[in-house]
Amino acid sequence: MLIVALDPPPNVDPVEWISKMFSTLRDVDGVAGFKIGLPAIIECGAKVLGNVFRDYDGLVIADLKLADIGDVMVLTLERLVRAGFNAVIAHSFVGVSNALDKLSRRCRELGVRLVLVATMSHPGAVEVMDSVLDKLINVVRRIDPWGVVAPATRLDVLERVRKELPSVKILSPGIGAQGAEPGDALCRGADYEIVGRAITRSENPREVAASIVAMQREKLSRCRK
Amino acid sequence: MLIVALDPPPNVDPVEWISKMFSTLRDVDGVAGFKIGLPAIIECGAKVLGNVFRDYDGLVIADLKLADIGDVMVLTLERLVRAGFNAVIAHSFVGVSNALDKLSRRCRELGVRLVLVATMSHPGAVEVMDSVLDKLINVVRRIDPWGVVAPATRLDVLERVRKELPSVKILSPGIGAQGAEPGDALCRGADYEIVGRAITRSENPREVAASIVAMQREKLSRCRK
Repeated sequence: MLIVALDPPPNVDPVEWISKMFSTLRDVDGVAGFKIGLPAIIECGAKVLGNVFRDYDGLVIADLKLADIGDVMVLTLERLVRAGFNAVIAHSFVGVSNALDKLSRRCRELGVRLVLVATMSHPGAVEVMDSVLDKLINVVRRIDPWGVVAPATRLDVLERVRKELPSVKILSPGIGAQGAEPGDALCRGADYEIVGRAITRSENPREVAASIVAMQREKLSRCRK
Repeated sequence: MLIVALDPPPNVDPVEWISKMFSTLRDVDGVAGFKIGLPAIIECGAKVLGNVFRDYDGLVIADLKLADIGDVMVLTLERLVRAGFNAVIAHSFVGVSNALDKLSRRCRELGVRLVLVATMSHPGAVEVMDSVLDKLINVVRRIDPWGVVAPATRLDVLERVRKELPSVKILSPGIGAQGAEPGDALCRGADYEIVGRAITRSENPREVAASIVAMQREKLSRCRK
């Protein structure tokens, strides 16, 4: 129920850093997978990065927040899959027709988990995205993806997504640096919490990851009573 | 007033293909620059691709359609600039606060041209984006970027963008394969038309590019009368 965001700090070799972090964390009980952001993929190319995860069964999510026409997203997806990624994040904002319909179909064919962004956690999300949250949730419903991103920092939004999309997996960022505590989102219906720097910039990433999983379990056991 | 979209076909070496196309087209009169899409950048990494354009003065646009929080977009931008890109495309729907405000500031510091997507040309754009076009144009106005993308296939939208944002550069895709003719968008207020396959998949890309520029000029001379 923990996904680790592997975002390399500046001034390190990103492939080396990601490889090392992955080896350190891959077998920690409760770690379901890893998420790699656009900056590292842009810098290294998908092939080089994906290769790090070759023999891994967990989630390997390319967090590209795709927001293009269908054909371009499909071409991107195919390159990610060849590189070894097994899940991809796209925006619901671009709509279904000639956009997410094509991406979703190709994801199913290739066995890739599609994760859609309903809304985001930063203040700018209120300016446009929140004003059309109904429409965005409706796009998610029509596409019926494997998962959806909903912020742990805005639990009202998360609860609404859970209620309106009962069977989708919810992935929640915002734990740690952005203020939410481990387990908060899980207790409101999320399936996975995404944690990055709180783990990867710590002195002992393995220990911190394990303690976050312990906190998630502890909080879940209390809120489910 | 012509920007060439360099999107490599499948089953070619993308760097080799882009290098060759760039050499063929760089000094065609009227070609103002090149646009590289996400699939090629993902496959090769920005460094390898950007290097192709090292000694070039024209536009080298990374068409990533960025749509993330500000910090992630800034990290991506910095990698693109180190690689040799001098313009980047981002979505206006992520809003200003903690998103495009940060990206825009860093673009100005680094001398990079920021291009925002107002709306798109595919049918799915009507489902969500068009319903908040007012808000999207307002985000563009607040950010005051160098340029904005508006489709040549939907000239009513293009005219509206021109009217509401009189000083921004307008880049129009949709010429050729998608149905618009060279010069159509320029006559409605666009500054650049983006053409890809009609040029790059032709027998003689240099000749086709030159003839498109001639058609643009011919149409412009008529519509400006």
